[in-house]
Amino acid sequence: MIELKIQSREHAEFIAITGPIQKTVAEQGWQSGCLTVYVPHTTAGITIQENADPDVARDMLYALEQAVPWLDSKYRHAEGNTAAHVKAAMLGASAQCLVEKGKLQLGTWQGIFFCEFDGPRSRHVWLGFHEASQG
Amino acid sequence: MIELKIQSREHAEFIAITGPIQKTVAEQGWQSGCLTVYVPHTTAGITIQENADPDVARDMLYALEQAVPWLDSKYRHAEGNTAAHVKAAMLGASAQCLVEKGKLQLGTWQGIFFCEFDGPRSRHVWLGFHEASQG
Amino acid sequence: MIELKIQSREHAEFIAITGPIQKTVAEQGWQSGCLTVYVPHTTAGITIQENADPDVARDMLYALEQAVPWLDSKYRHAEGNTAAHVKAAMLGASAQCLVEKGKLQLGTWQGIFFCEFDGPRSRHVWLGFHEASQG
Repeated sequence: MIELKIQSREHAEFIAITGPIQKTVAEQGWQSGCLTVYVPHTTAGITIQENADPDVARDMLYALEQAVPWLDSKYRHAEGNTAAHVKAAMLGASAQCLVEKGKLQLGTWQGIFFCEFDGPRSRHVWLGFHEASQG
Repeated sequence: MIELKIQSREHAEFIAITGPIQKTVAEQGWQSGCLTVYVPHTTAGITIQENADPDVARDMLYALEQAVPWLDSKYRHAEGNTAAHVKAAMLGASAQCLVEKGKLQLGTWQGIFFCEFDGPRSRHVWLGFHEASQG
Repeated sequence: MIELKIQSREHAEFIAITGPIQKTVAEQGWQSGCLTVYVPHTTAGITIQENADPDVARDMLYALEQAVPWLDSKYRHAEGNTAAHVKAAMLGASAQCLVEKGKLQLGTWQGIFFCEFDGPRSRHVWLGFHEASQG
């Protein structure tokens, strides 16, 4: 498994990581199969989402904050970052992408985003690859 | 990887796709392993959910709309479909199913649903299969 | 595929299942690859989340209930457990974990949790393993 380093700069932000992931796929010689992108954190998640208009990521952070507000007098977790845990769980700790002929297969508008919900922090993602069955 | 075509008819709907997926598994001769069902779109997602009472899917669309309303004066994305992106991210861009002896392994009440959040549109899902390790 | 039994005791609770999963990985001799943990139910999900402070799981159940309330006069599903279906779909029916040298690879604070949203019930999870490609 391969580890990529990510440094978040904001309290909450979506960080595009398609480039470094595609680079790793090429460097490792991974040809055809399924790539698992895994987040070993509990206040950050991962999503495959629109990579064109940056307002999509901005709006997604806003809408998630409306659904799961940072402040709520009934939260008990002493660290005060309950909302980050919930948002991370909603988006998930891993994403799966198909790879063919050494290329990540993404839809036209898709990119892979590391989703920071309690930064800034030094973060990582882990990549694992599983060769597809031959047809 | 295999591509299935889906035509959504409503602005928001859950479309059952278990049948075409099982058919593909059989046609491809996929025996035992893990199937990845991947959605290459950013305003549609995928879920494995109840396939018995159609009111479950109807209620799920309603509840997601309560959590992430279509209209909000603070959204900035010019296309106006921010909520579709958020709902798609919450349900996820892919689902994993186990396959044994050429059969999708689903729970008693489970079906696989393509989740349209900004239709109607011509859509696709991609299927990738990974043989399980021998015991 | 291997089946683990789970008995939930509460209407809604997160049940830590990292221990039994790691035990299965060891017993099966699974060495390096990707583990799929699959929930064959529609009112329970799975998440990889903080395994240190139990208030995180407690707060997550609270926050999910705020986003998707159990009671809403507009739900139509006759069983009355629409919210459980939505919460299960938000967290997802499966989780993927990387395995190296026979050990689950989890972040420092991560544990795997079965998420009961309409218990108490007798439940199951299914485990499937896929060997990684050799480098």
